Amino acid sequence: MSARPGTDRTPDARPALGGHQDLFYTTSNTQHLPHIVRGEGIYLFDAVGTPYIDVASGAVVNNLGQGNERVLAAMAEQGRKLTFSYVRVSRHEPNRMVADRVAALAGPGYERVHLSSGGSEANEMALKFLRQYAYATGQRDRTRVISCVPSYHGATLLTMAITGEPEYEAVYDGMITFSEKIPAPLAYRTPDGISAEENARRTVDALEETILRLGPEKVLAFVIEPVGGVSTGANVPAGRFFADVREVCDRYGVYLVFDEVMTACRTGTFLAAHQWPEARPDVVVLAKGLGAGYTPLGAMLAPARMVDELAGLTGFNLSHTYNANPITCAGAVAVLDELVERDLLGNARRMGDHLRIRLEELGKNSPLVGDVRGLGLLQAVEIVADKETKATLPREVRAPDRIRELGLRHGLMLYARQQNGGRYGEWFMVAPPLVITEEEVDAMVDRIGRTLDDFTDELTRDGLLG
Amino acid sequence: MSARPGTDRTPDARPALGGHQDLFYTTSNTQHLPHIVRGEGIYLFDAVGTPYIDVASGAVVNNLGQGNERVLAAMAEQGRKLTFSYVRVSRHEPNRMVADRVAALAGPGYERVHLSSGGSEANEMALKFLRQYAYATGQRDRTRVISCVPSYHGATLLTMAITGEPEYEAVYDGMITFSEKIPAPLAYRTPDGISAEENARRTVDALEETILRLGPEKVLAFVIEPVGGVSTGANVPAGRFFADVREVCDRYGVYLVFDEVMTACRTGTFLAAHQWPEARPDVVVLAKGLGAGYTPLGAMLAPARMVDELAGLTGFNLSHTYNANPITCAGAVAVLDELVERDLLGNARRMGDHLRIRLEELGKNSPLVGDVRGLGLLQAVEIVADKETKATLPREVRAPDRIRELGLRHGLMLYARQQNGGRYGEWFMVAPPLVITEEEVDAMVDRIGRTLDDFTDELTRDGLLG
Repeated sequence: MSARPGTDRTPDARPALGGHQDLFYTTSNTQHLPHIVRGEGIYLFDAVGTPYIDVASGAVVNNLGQGNERVLAAMAEQGRKLTFSYVRVSRHEPNRMVADRVAALAGPGYERVHLSSGGSEANEMALKFLRQYAYATGQRDRTRVISCVPSYHGATLLTMAITGEPEYEAVYDGMITFSEKIPAPLAYRTPDGISAEENARRTVDALEETILRLGPEKVLAFVIEPVGGVSTGANVPAGRFFADVREVCDRYGVYLVFDEVMTACRTGTFLAAHQWPEARPDVVVLAKGLGAGYTPLGAMLAPARMVDELAGLTGFNLSHTYNANPITCAGAVAVLDELVERDLLGNARRMGDHLRIRLEELGKNSPLVGDVRGLGLLQAVEIVADKETKATLPREVRAPDRIRELGLRHGLMLYARQQNGGRYGEWFMVAPPLVITEEEVDAMVDRIGRTLDDFTDELTRDGLLG
Repeated sequence: MSARPGTDRTPDARPALGGHQDLFYTTSNTQHLPHIVRGEGIYLFDAVGTPYIDVASGAVVNNLGQGNERVLAAMAEQGRKLTFSYVRVSRHEPNRMVADRVAALAGPGYERVHLSSGGSEANEMALKFLRQYAYATGQRDRTRVISCVPSYHGATLLTMAITGEPEYEAVYDGMITFSEKIPAPLAYRTPDGISAEENARRTVDALEETILRLGPEKVLAFVIEPVGGVSTGANVPAGRFFADVREVCDRYGVYLVFDEVMTACRTGTFLAAHQWPEARPDVVVLAKGLGAGYTPLGAMLAPARMVDELAGLTGFNLSHTYNANPITCAGAVAVLDELVERDLLGNARRMGDHLRIRLEELGKNSPLVGDVRGLGLLQAVEIVADKETKATLPREVRAPDRIRELGLRHGLMLYARQQNGGRYGEWFMVAPPLVITEEEVDAMVDRIGRTLDDFTDELTRDGLLG
C-alpha cells in the first residue's frame, strides 16, 4: 500500500499494485511530494492541515483557485441535462457557446475554435490543420516546422518533436521528424553579453536562415510561446521581435503559430498576442487556463477564412472522442464567465505589477536572484550563484528541486524543474491563481524570501556562495 | 449565428464567428446533424423532444448512459474538496484510488496505471513508455512499430502513424515514421475466400515476416485492437490468433500492446485480454468507457516489474497537465463503482448475447446484412449489396452515412462512417450503453430493422438491389 497521507514515501516503499502517477518518474525526483487532501482559494492543505500557497497554480492551470462553485455547478448541471453526445454525429449548445465565447474574446482572425482535451492535443491539431490546409491548397512540400531551444510544446510525440529538449532527440530518433531548432529570444542569459534586443534579432535572423536552408517551399510553420513557460522561465522577447518574425513568415509563406497554452488568460490580456498586435499569428493554441484545472480542455483558434475554405476542400476531419464534450464545454463557459465578470484579466495586470515590484525588491536583497521576468501573473525568478557573471549553481545542487523542497517548509507549493540540464539557467515559476489578492501576493513573496534565505544559508554553509 | 436548434444547417449558413466543431469537417459530411439538448438513460432528445436511442454510446464511450448522478456528484464533491493539484509536485488520494481500482480489475501483469486524458494520449504513452524502457535497457535499435490495416489507434500524429489509413500516409508523409502495416485478421471479408482461421494465420505470418524483414532487433512493438472498433466493424480474430501472436512476439522480443480503448469494460470482461489469457499483452491501453463520457480519461497499464525498473534507471518522466487530475480521478472511481456494483460486465455479456440473436434474426430477413459480429456490447452490422458475393454498395451511395440519416427518422443515433474508402466493407456499430435492458435492446433492433427496410426500399427504387 502507499504511504500514509502527510508522509513521504521512502524509495523502497513502492506499492505492489496501483499507486500514484509519480511511480513512473525517476525515483530521485519523487521524494518529498506532499499528500494534498484539500484546497481553498489559492491554498492547498496536506493531511495534517498544513496550508501551502499554490505558487504556480498547479501547472499554471488552476486560474480560478480551488473549489469554484459556479464552474462545478455548471458541469454537474450539464451532466444531468446532457452528459455526452458525439460531435461527429450531433450538435449541442455547450459546444457552440464556448466556441462563440472564445472567438469573441480572441477577436478578428480567430473566428473558428477547434476543441480538444489539453494543450498537447491542441498544438497537434494546429500543426495538422495547417498541414492539411497546405496539402489541400497545393503547397504539398510544406511539412517542416521550426521552433526554439529552449521551449516546451507538449508531451505527445509531435509536440515533443517541436519542443527544445535535446534529450528527446536521443531517445526518439528515427520515430519522428524533429523540428529545426533555432535559439530562443532569451532576454537575460544572452550569448556573448549582447543585449536582449540584439539576441531577439539573432533569433529572427536564425529563423530566416533556417527557412532559406530548408527551402522556403518546404517550411510549414514557426511555433513559439510568445511569453515562455517553464522551459525559459517566463522569457519575454525584447524589441521588435514579433514584428520582425511576422515579416519573415510573410516573406516566405510560413505560418506563425502562437503556443498560448500557458499564456492565454494570464498575461493581462485574453491572448498574449493582443499585446503585440503586429504579430498577427495565423493560429493560436490555448489550454490550461481555459479549463482552469476543472476539466481537460484545449483549443486551436484559426481564421474562418482558412477553416471554411478547407471544409469545402478536403475538410479537417480529425477528432478525439472527448472533443467539445458537453460537460467540459459547460465548465469552460463558466470559467470564461468568471474571467470576464470578475475582471480577472485586469487583476492579472494589477497583481502582476504588484508582484513584479515585490519580487524585484526581494531580488535586490537576495544574492541568489539573477533575474525577475514575465508578464502579468506569469512570472519567474532566475537563480544564480553569482549576479555579476550570471553563473549557475553546480548542477548537483539541483537548485530548482531544492528550492521546491525548502518552500514546502515555508508553506509554498512551488513548481520548479530543471530543464535542458540547466544549460539555459534555473528558475521557479511565480504564477498564482488569477483570483489572488494583494495581501496574498505579499504573503507569498514573504514566504519566497524566507525560502531563498534558507537556501542561501545552506549554500553558504556548504561553501557554494561567496 | 448558428442554425436554430432542431434544424439542420444549410451548407451556406456558416456562422461568422464560433459555431460547432463540425465546421472543421468536410462540408458534405455535416448535413443532417441533429441538435441534441437533453439525455436520459440510453436516450438523447433534440429541441423538439424527439427521442433517439444512442446506439453507439456516442463514440462507444458513454457506458453508463446519460446523467448518472453518482458520477456527477463524485466529480462535484471532489472539485469542492480539492480541485487540482499537480502530480509532478504532489500526491492525492483520487489518483491512488483509481490506479488501485484499475490495477485490481486488470489483474496480474498490469499493476501500474499511467493516466492521461483520452485514448490517443494513452496509446502514445504506451509506445513512449516501451521506447524509453528499450532505450534504458540497452535495446536502443528498437524503434519500429507494426500494426494492422484496417485499424484505428487515435488522432495524434503518432497514433495516426500506426492507424491503418493510407490517406494519412499521403498527407503526413515526411512528418513522422509510419508503422509497418500488415493485414488485419479479418474474419468476414477474407481474401481469396479463405477461412477466418486461415486469414488470422496469415496475419501472424505477416507479423513474423515483417519482423524478420525489418530486423528483429529494430522492432519495438506490435499494436492491435483485440476486438476491432469502427475501422473493422468489431472484427473478432478467429482460431489460435492470440496464442500465435504471443509466440511470435516472444520469439523476437517484440512487445505486444493491446489497444483496448474501445473494448475495455464492454466485451463482457474488464479487459478483452481476459478472454484470451494466452495473449498476455505486455501493455494494455484503456480510455473511453473508463471516463464513460463524464470526463476525458485514458490509462496505460504496465507491469510493476518494468515500471519500477525504469524508475530506477532513467524514469518515464512524461506527463500532461491533466494527468491524474483529482476531478477526473474521482469521476472514474465512481464509474468503476457503478460497473462493479451493478454488474455491468455481466449485463454486457447477457445483453450482448440477446442483441446478437436479435441482430442475426434481422440479418436473415434483410438483404443488406452481410455479417453480424463482435463481442458483448461491442457489435457491428456489415452492409452488402449481395450476401453471396459480399459485394459492397457503390461508394457514392455513402451507405453508412445514409443509414445514419435514415436512422434519425426512426429514433436512432447511429455512429457510422466510411473508413478506408469502403475498401474493407461498410458497417455501423451497435454498442449501446452497458445499462441497456432487454426491452430496450428489442426496441433498438426493431428500429434498426425499420431503418434497413427503408434503405432497402430506396436502393431497390434506384435499381441498386436485385
